[in-house]
Amino acid sequence: MSKKYVVLFKEADGSQKALLGGKGANLAEMTRIGLPVPPGFTITTEACNEYYRSGGQLPSGLIEEVFIALKQVEEITAKKYGDMENPLLISVRSGAAVSMPGMMDTILNLGLNDQTVEAIAGLTKDERFALDCYRRFIQMFSSVVLDVEHALFDSVMERYKERLKLSYDFEIPAEQMREIINEFKEIVARTIHNEFPQDVAKQLEMAIVSVFASWNTPRAIVYRRANKISDDLGTAVNIQSMVFGNMGADSGTGVAFTRNPSTGEHKLYGEFLVNAQGEDVVAGIRTPFPINMLQEQLPAIYREFVDICAILENHYRDLQDIEFTVEKGKLYILQTRNGKRTAHAAVRAAVEMVDEGIISKKEALMRIEADQLDQLLHRQIDTKANMEIIARGLPASPGAGSGKVVFDADEVEKAASEGEKVVLVRNETTPDDIHGIIKAEGVLTSRGGMTSHAAVVARGMGKPCVCGCENVKISPDLTEFTVDELVVKKGDIISIDGTTGNVMLGEVPMIDPVMSLEFETLLKWADEAKKLSVRANADTPEDALKAREFGAEGIGLCRTEHMFMAQERLPIVQEMIMSDTVAEREAALAKILPFQRDDFYGIFKAMESLPVTIRFLDPPLHEFLPNDKELMLEIAELKFKNGPAEEIKAKEYLLKKVNSLHEVNPMLGHRGTRLGITYPEIYRMQARAVFEAVVSLKKEGLDILPEVEIPLVMDRAELAIMKEEVLNVYQEVVKETGLEFEFKVGTMIELPRACMMAEEIAEEAEFFSFGTNDLTQTTFGFSRDDAEGKYIPIYMEKKIIKENPFAVLDRQGVGGLMKIAVEKGRQVKPDILIGICGEHGGEPSSIEFCHMLGLEYVSCSPYRVPIARLAAAQAAISNQGQSK
Amino acid sequence: MSKKYVVLFKEADGSQKALLGGKGANLAEMTRIGLPVPPGFTITTEACNEYYRSGGQLPSGLIEEVFIALKQVEEITAKKYGDMENPLLISVRSGAAVSMPGMMDTILNLGLNDQTVEAIAGLTKDERFALDCYRRFIQMFSSVVLDVEHALFDSVMERYKERLKLSYDFEIPAEQMREIINEFKEIVARTIHNEFPQDVAKQLEMAIVSVFASWNTPRAIVYRRANKISDDLGTAVNIQSMVFGNMGADSGTGVAFTRNPSTGEHKLYGEFLVNAQGEDVVAGIRTPFPINMLQEQLPAIYREFVDICAILENHYRDLQDIEFTVEKGKLYILQTRNGKRTAHAAVRAAVEMVDEGIISKKEALMRIEADQLDQLLHRQIDTKANMEIIARGLPASPGAGSGKVVFDADEVEKAASEGEKVVLVRNETTPDDIHGIIKAEGVLTSRGGMTSHAAVVARGMGKPCVCGCENVKISPDLTEFTVDELVVKKGDIISIDGTTGNVMLGEVPMIDPVMSLEFETLLKWADEAKKLSVRANADTPEDALKAREFGAEGIGLCRTEHMFMAQERLPIVQEMIMSDTVAEREAALAKILPFQRDDFYGIFKAMESLPVTIRFLDPPLHEFLPNDKELMLEIAELKFKNGPAEEIKAKEYLLKKVNSLHEVNPMLGHRGTRLGITYPEIYRMQARAVFEAVVSLKKEGLDILPEVEIPLVMDRAELAIMKEEVLNVYQEVVKETGLEFEFKVGTMIELPRACMMAEEIAEEAEFFSFGTNDLTQTTFGFSRDDAEGKYIPIYMEKKIIKENPFAVLDRQGVGGLMKIAVEKGRQVKPDILIGICGEHGGEPSSIEFCHMLGLEYVSCSPYRVPIARLAAAQAAISNQGQSK
Repeated sequence: MSKKYVVLFKEADGSQKALLGGKGANLAEMTRIGLPVPPGFTITTEACNEYYRSGGQLPSGLIEEVFIALKQVEEITAKKYGDMENPLLISVRSGAAVSMPGMMDTILNLGLNDQTVEAIAGLTKDERFALDCYRRFIQMFSSVVLDVEHALFDSVMERYKERLKLSYDFEIPAEQMREIINEFKEIVARTIHNEFPQDVAKQLEMAIVSVFASWNTPRAIVYRRANKISDDLGTAVNIQSMVFGNMGADSGTGVAFTRNPSTGEHKLYGEFLVNAQGEDVVAGIRTPFPINMLQEQLPAIYREFVDICAILENHYRDLQDIEFTVEKGKLYILQTRNGKRTAHAAVRAAVEMVDEGIISKKEALMRIEADQLDQLLHRQIDTKANMEIIARGLPASPGAGSGKVVFDADEVEKAASEGEKVVLVRNETTPDDIHGIIKAEGVLTSRGGMTSHAAVVARGMGKPCVCGCENVKISPDLTEFTVDELVVKKGDIISIDGTTGNVMLGEVPMIDPVMSLEFETLLKWADEAKKLSVRANADTPEDALKAREFGAEGIGLCRTEHMFMAQERLPIVQEMIMSDTVAEREAALAKILPFQRDDFYGIFKAMESLPVTIRFLDPPLHEFLPNDKELMLEIAELKFKNGPAEEIKAKEYLLKKVNSLHEVNPMLGHRGTRLGITYPEIYRMQARAVFEAVVSLKKEGLDILPEVEIPLVMDRAELAIMKEEVLNVYQEVVKETGLEFEFKVGTMIELPRACMMAEEIAEEAEFFSFGTNDLTQTTFGFSRDDAEGKYIPIYMEKKIIKENPFAVLDRQGVGGLMKIAVEKGRQVKPDILIGICGEHGGEPSSIEFCHMLGLEYVSCSPYRVPIARLAAAQAAISNQGQSK
Repeated sequence: MSKKYVVLFKEADGSQKALLGGKGANLAEMTRIGLPVPPGFTITTEACNEYYRSGGQLPSGLIEEVFIALKQVEEITAKKYGDMENPLLISVRSGAAVSMPGMMDTILNLGLNDQTVEAIAGLTKDERFALDCYRRFIQMFSSVVLDVEHALFDSVMERYKERLKLSYDFEIPAEQMREIINEFKEIVARTIHNEFPQDVAKQLEMAIVSVFASWNTPRAIVYRRANKISDDLGTAVNIQSMVFGNMGADSGTGVAFTRNPSTGEHKLYGEFLVNAQGEDVVAGIRTPFPINMLQEQLPAIYREFVDICAILENHYRDLQDIEFTVEKGKLYILQTRNGKRTAHAAVRAAVEMVDEGIISKKEALMRIEADQLDQLLHRQIDTKANMEIIARGLPASPGAGSGKVVFDADEVEKAASEGEKVVLVRNETTPDDIHGIIKAEGVLTSRGGMTSHAAVVARGMGKPCVCGCENVKISPDLTEFTVDELVVKKGDIISIDGTTGNVMLGEVPMIDPVMSLEFETLLKWADEAKKLSVRANADTPEDALKAREFGAEGIGLCRTEHMFMAQERLPIVQEMIMSDTVAEREAALAKILPFQRDDFYGIFKAMESLPVTIRFLDPPLHEFLPNDKELMLEIAELKFKNGPAEEIKAKEYLLKKVNSLHEVNPMLGHRGTRLGITYPEIYRMQARAVFEAVVSLKKEGLDILPEVEIPLVMDRAELAIMKEEVLNVYQEVVKETGLEFEFKVGTMIELPRACMMAEEIAEEAEFFSFGTNDLTQTTFGFSRDDAEGKYIPIYMEKKIIKENPFAVLDRQGVGGLMKIAVEKGRQVKPDILIGICGEHGGEPSSIEFCHMLGLEYVSCSPYRVPIARLAAAQAAISNQGQSK
């Protein structure tokens, strides 16, 4: 044995997450601090990776190591695996470094066979319990490891209950249980053409292989992609002696959060099922009792559990999600992990834990997944609205959503890809529904509790979810659901409110979110910790006000193209484009000037003295003209119909202009500063509009700091020419008004060549703003319009890229070019202002990279400003002492 | 005086070209080695640059320096500038570091005024001569410095000659010359509202300013752009005492080349005009005698001149272009410079100078402008063709061209931009015609000799030119020309042969060039000197054979898209694209396989054992389908006409597919390896076609080295996946045939991200080939299809870019990324093969850069292979000891 792949819980500790997985490390850690954990050991993630490297072979020596470790567990428990007299039963569970709830395999009760089941029956003096364990084991092992359909077993159980006129599984007597076990074994033999394995060593080996294999099931891959988890981590396998929650009324099993995962309230929150095994809770098959009822039923256990919760929360310095089992009046902790929670709960818990002295402010900031804050910034149902509540379920994941009713995850995906908004309605969801949940506006289930699959997954995604809405009856053919007399058909529109649990017919009015006091507190701490300034991308006074409300420290990108697009302006803009001479163009531009001046006036006023970066006209001019194909067809039709010659002529003239402006690759076309160079009068008009707005506000006593931004620059000379035009207009305005004021002229860095030439460009630029959308397009040679619908999904599926580079900044390629630009720019002008204004400016991982690059600011959409503030703080904390 | 702007000829030497200009440095050098140069001095290029820096002011102190230097010239000549008794006359000439013949100002005879002219008359005892000088001076100074139209003066001369019934200017007697001078002065006074300047100091200052200003005339700028000369060099000004070729029959002026500039033959070649000044020769106003006739007329002078030619050629180690004047039996050398020559002459002269022991082989290689070799590789008229020669002129610049007759340079430019081929026909050309000459297929003039403007410029450009074709009479309204009875109208097609001087009606058959023995010798020397290997881009066996003929050492780029485009294959390819399943696609591909296998077989066979890089399918699939607009119109028409429903349906189905493949930016679209990733069966078929062809040839005893090239890679993983597919196909073929063979798998580096990720990509790649066409597109964000017609011309005009980056590799931006890629690639795999296969691979400056980067090879079109071989040698010689 060249390598140690197996570690006993008592040999390890919680720091070894990468090696032991989250669950394994926690079991070891809990063992270390003296909590009642059933003894066991962990097979490391390295073994899993080695398994994949060798094309699906268990590493040599692994099984020997496992049995040496098992011997130690046998010694602690004084039982023996496979023994005919005092057999040890064990569980085999997956456990990756990052939690992937329900994604991978778990098998309980290993070690049972036709012999050992009798030994258990004798020892517990409970034949029925032993047989029930055995039939559960056969069912679970067969469906998980042997790939036998689970429903085949269920139907046997249903048949017996029907025949015996029983409601619950646990009412089936021992005698029939023996028959059931025989039927189960026959099902297995029929399906796999082999007997159910009686050799317990074989059972263990097969279970280990099965857990490794479950790392790469399609659903696990989809989950990892949705949750940005690397495919290379691998899973550990935890092997642990069994404890039984199904040994009578003084037994049971439960899960609990140390604080409410929806609200963050500091109150134990969870569920408990008497006389059951854990799978019954998680699967949502039986609806459990709330955890506080345990206080009445098993008060001593409850007190012990509350103490353990406090110990665990203090130990892990975070909200814990704990699985436990009570076996004949003894409490066992099976698992603890940082609990998934809503953004609202995350914020409240973090802030309160600081107040309670458990964690520091910086720790509080690190406790929150910045992206998750999106939830808090989403709309809610307007409580003043008049609406018909048709059903009420559990408020499983806050926020509200409306859409067409769809009953199938594949259909959700299809409808969403066609731009439809849909709500997924299911009896319960399973990990196979993940891709539908991702695309739905919300999820409604008729069964399952707050910790059911649908609830956990939806909360993680910040997706509205109403669970356990038992009034909702879905028709077997999945064409409609009924609530009493009411029939809701597939395609009808409903709204759900995951904050209240209400379900409404039709689309209901919604309102914008308001930030909680804890949220404000947290963001204040974030502002203290962060180095990056956070600006917003805003093109209108309304956007600007919203941005300030969310704490933006300026506007990092004010696009001016919509100032040309507005309905009343477009004809003038088209007149300008159709002009044959500079004079004609200037005449048309003079008519656009007052509009743009008013636009800038409003935006500047909203931002007061905060900096505002105004990007001059960027898109190619043909975007302002009618579509060539439509025009062609109109002309063809007019000709076939012998339409008026004059109209044909006019349209033909227009088409000629449209064609003359046509571009093969408009993304790389006559746009950005190339427009400014060709038609300097356009940029001159824009400079005048900016400066006249500044002057108006100066007269009102406001000092505005406009930053004129020239887009798509690839060389110093372009910027120099445009800067001179802008400076000339400034001189004119000063001459006309007698007022002087400050402003900056800078450029977007959005072409690889601009990065390579940054030292020269910096000679002219007072600021750089990375336009990483375009920089990603040119660096990858990906046309975003084409790539996202066509080959990026294929590339992600084939694992060529881990992330969509338009969503998460590519640090090596695009980031490498940015690094070059920053270094070259600062070399020439050490105090040059550098920021980012692409969509990446609101994405946490990209923000961290910007922090590491030493940029001054990020700019993002107003709604993502709070996320960016937190992400910037986290970047500063994570990289303390590393960045400049 | 803070700075020395003026240098006497005798104080300097030939090494100071940048400071003194080519002409000034040569005059100094000739003075230094004791040749008979009229004394004078040079105002440096720094003064010119200072003049532009200060917005058009002469540097302070300059004029004082000029007059101090002038005093020294006065001492040598024992004359005095402006003196009433023994006045010194001077010339003022421009002279940049790089020769720009005829582009900038020259003024002769400064120092003449109403008084000094009488002194000259007295001293020379030749009143007519003195008056003729004066009238020439007024005419030249006024048109050059005062901007008075030259033709106004000409018409006065014509009027007098008519009235006096004289043929030549020199026949006009002194008395009438006085009248003419008065009329000239009146013309000046009328035009400039001021008297012609009598103050000789003022004359000199104005002339200096005028020369400086002439550096930035539009025609000079156009010339520099066409000849890739930097705008920042500035011109020097040479001030020199006058000598007179127009002092009678023992005087004269001439220009001569030390060897024939058309053929390279080692024989004095030039022209001489008796009793004339230099301007008469250059302007082509009078047709001069061949230089050898000087031997009869002035044998002593001829002998002296022949000796000086040998001295100069030995001294400068290059073919010289010499201007000289004989003043009353004394020879003066006015200028020498390296002579412009045809490529043919350049090659012959260089090789013969090595044979004669004048220069080394390396010097010979450096004597030739690599780009110019293009001429030798251009087509010539097929001598076996039956053709009607309508006129015969001087064979001024070799090669043949056909096109429509056009009489105006602007019209040439316009027609050429519309894709027309045209021949420019003029009485004589002037520097204002440059832009037309650049765009014409050839130039035909009715006047002027082998050293006339048209001849010099056309030779420099390698453009066919026939000069002095006196039978050609152009109609005044520029609508036609006649040759005797024959009328050739504007728009009629003619052909010219600059090698023979023939002019033909219509388009005549032409043949491919054959390389001369000297050319072969030179290229052999180039191969010995160069470090870079030269490959060709070739897609067919024919191209491959042509490439080998020109010395290609392999194929650096075999594009495979035409193997899909060919007429009989396109329907199968469309069938493949329209397939809905992999099986359907594979069935269609199986039909294409034999075609491609045959293609590769032919190419491999042509290249024998030389390496062949095969680029797998690159363009997006929609390029193989019909145009969407045409389809739309066809459908619309069918519908309006109630066409057959089935046909409409079929076309609509096709249109749907075309639309589904439509891309907003195809350059950044679903192409290159992205096709291979999505449809691996396409690349598998190509790999099979390659390998089966290799096997066939192996059976014939030929060992082929195919290099499979995956295009448009941006990440290691893409290449790894494609490489695996290729290796699998190889294993299949080995299994099927039992034959093993060598091959490489590599990638094009044509995206900025590929450069940034080169260390990872190099782990998979056995070679890198820079695709600098696409790399330039993505680095600049320039769509070549859009940019070259739209904004690149504007960018060059505004001097934002000096070169079209698609023609000449951008060293800082694109080159900077290449450097990163080379460094990263070699870091991981020091022996990785790296080359370039973009169009830049055949452009000398780009080739030099590739040499400096340490690439292994360049690849270019077969016809540019000789150019690349020479350019590679020059790069190696120029960068000796600098590159790795």
